[in-house]
Amino acid sequence: MKRASFADMNCSVAQTLEVIGEWWTLLIVRDALFGVTRFDEFSSRLGIARNVLTRRLDTLVDHGVMTKVPYQDNPIRHDYRLTEKGRDLWTVLTALRQWGDKWAIDTEPPIVTSHRTCGHTMTVEPVCSECGEALTRGSIRIHRGPGADEQSPSPIGHSEDRATPTN
Amino acid sequence: MKRASFADMNCSVAQTLEVIGEWWTLLIVRDALFGVTRFDEFSSRLGIARNVLTRRLDTLVDHGVMTKVPYQDNPIRHDYRLTEKGRDLWTVLTALRQWGDKWAIDTEPPIVTSHRTCGHTMTVEPVCSECGEALTRGSIRIHRGPGADEQSPSPIGHSEDRATPTN
Repeated sequence: MKRASFADMNCSVAQTLEVIGEWWTLLIVRDALFGVTRFDEFSSRLGIARNVLTRRLDTLVDHGVMTKVPYQDNPIRHDYRLTEKGRDLWTVLTALRQWGDKWAIDTEPPIVTSHRTCGHTMTVEPVCSECGEALTRGSIRIHRGPGADEQSPSPIGHSEDRATPTN
Repeated sequence: MKRASFADMNCSVAQTLEVIGEWWTLLIVRDALFGVTRFDEFSSRLGIARNVLTRRLDTLVDHGVMTKVPYQDNPIRHDYRLTEKGRDLWTVLTALRQWGDKWAIDTEPPIVTSHRTCGHTMTVEPVCSECGEALTRGSIRIHRGPGADEQSPSPIGHSEDRATPTN
């Protein structure tokens, strides 16, 4: 079920995908967050078949994650740009990358980030939206929400709230 | 390339996967974070073929994301429990869930979370590890890290740091 081609990439996100599943799509989003917009550059960076890439990009456009912007008329050529919906996936890519940095690669991180405001090399850390305290998995309780129905996945305990086990 | 079966789930994570790709594996981790440990319960909650589920669980065990703990001797039966490596995926599941809440579902959130310490219903928000300030994608710069090599995905601009475009 794995794509061997992921295994050779020196990228924490790709290594995470190697563990979790297989999806070229998020690697396209990753490269778009890096500033890639041209079909040929996605193609050469990702090394995937052009017909597969076309299908994946079209799907992202269909879902409103990317948009096609003409940059040339004759013949017509398009840039592929992330929409706000697509740019919002930075949190997913960051979580995948930081997990991969910790658990899926044996080397130092191939990518690091810094904060424009404070200037430091940093990681993205999770805090509570209400009190601002740093969060661990054990500090979070999961509940059925207002959109839950009979088909919804629920914490074990059903009508009871499930307390996530502490670390 | 899509699994129609994801489309019907009232779950933001599943709806995100419907957009992003297809991976039962993270739904297994999701249910494990909800407290599920038994093969039969994973099977009935996820509604996937037993042989597929067996393969996915075995892969997670092989990767050290889950571990098998005997709970019965004759015949032997195992609980599947997340390891520390697996529990750490809560950040990925949270990012997928919160993105899906915003972008991939039309209803109210099927799952909500609260913070044990402050007691409020809350979301998980990203802050800088160094200065504690709230982060947006535009406030983060991406750099090649110490583990980068010629094969690494890099921000456009190569030797230059790529500043992520501001919102």
